Amino acid sequence: MIGGEPFRVEDGEGWERVEEATLFDHRWIRVEQATFRTRNRSGEVTWVVSRRPAGAVVAPQLPDGSFLMIRQERYPVQRVLWEFPAGLIDDPRFREDFSVIEAAALRELEEETGHRLLPEGRLVSLGHYFSSVGFTDEHCYLFLAQGVGPTGEGLRLDGGENILEVRAFPVTEIREMIRRNELVDANSLVVFARLCALGFIA
Amino acid sequence: MIGGEPFRVEDGEGWERVEEATLFDHRWIRVEQATFRTRNRSGEVTWVVSRRPAGAVVAPQLPDGSFLMIRQERYPVQRVLWEFPAGLIDDPRFREDFSVIEAAALRELEEETGHRLLPEGRLVSLGHYFSSVGFTDEHCYLFLAQGVGPTGEGLRLDGGENILEVRAFPVTEIREMIRRNELVDANSLVVFARLCALGFIA
Repeated sequence: MIGGEPFRVEDGEGWERVEEATLFDHRWIRVEQATFRTRNRSGEVTWVVSRRPAGAVVAPQLPDGSFLMIRQERYPVQRVLWEFPAGLIDDPRFREDFSVIEAAALRELEEETGHRLLPEGRLVSLGHYFSSVGFTDEHCYLFLAQGVGPTGEGLRLDGGENILEVRAFPVTEIREMIRRNELVDANSLVVFARLCALGFIA
Repeated sequence: MIGGEPFRVEDGEGWERVEEATLFDHRWIRVEQATFRTRNRSGEVTWVVSRRPAGAVVAPQLPDGSFLMIRQERYPVQRVLWEFPAGLIDDPRFREDFSVIEAAALRELEEETGHRLLPEGRLVSLGHYFSSVGFTDEHCYLFLAQGVGPTGEGLRLDGGENILEVRAFPVTEIREMIRRNELVDANSLVVFARLCALGFIA
């Protein structure tokens, strides 16, 4: 298992934020202009940084080895996409307590697929990643939920989300969707990369 | 080859932007509040969308099969990261002309690694992806530059960038970095996923 504790952007390898100003502040995004001093350059550098809450992504695997994906309306990209379930982590205690992140992943699993871990199932950490390193501090924690089954209670969605379909895909079909450029969101592609590199899929 | 023409967020599967208001506007990011009407829901939905320029990422492969990566300071995440070279596409004609995107990829290759395609080399499109589909329209076009060699002229960096090292990695080492959660940016991980799914790496 990798990534057994939360990643902290604040730790930053001894980097110093010499100065910062908020340019824009909204519920889901804060744009800052920040000046940094780092170990690798003599001067200072100023950068515009969009700060975002962290997220959790989960690849739910059925006992037959296939993976559940959801088909969801995504307004920023004006597309309906097949993806692994994911959501923001809105409890700030996640920085101290990895179980808050695991709980967020399991909640998204239940809400967005109507499935949960089976008694013999397990949640495996696949580490974290950054969605756009020149632009935002946004990062997501990745999980494999190995052994899931239906809750019997269906999906639980909030107002904005629109999930049109939940379906199981064998690994060969997911690979084919990636090959055909049909799986196009970073979350799902990065989970696939980690599952490959860690040997969970061939 | 996939993704032989630019992707257009504007095409959006018949979605309608009923209303939009700019909440914040800056050189590299525009935050909008937009109301959408889609084929899949009866009512309308309002969403905050961060609009960004598109990008290009390139995986430069040496004749011996290894890949060049760069070690770069990334201020938004306060980290020094190993990544494939990448940059924004600042020429808006890319929406009509795929060669503008290819040129951006080849320019980043030269500027950030001091390498270019060899006469027998080729640039292979690996499609596109979206970095954070609930947040931003940002998308990047991915390429494999198969067969690169040194320009002899070194790197050409602009003011803000700080590339500390350029090095060739065999595929086994890249896989190991992904396994150990050391390769953490979406660009590089998504390129790896596409290279795997398309059979360019084992």
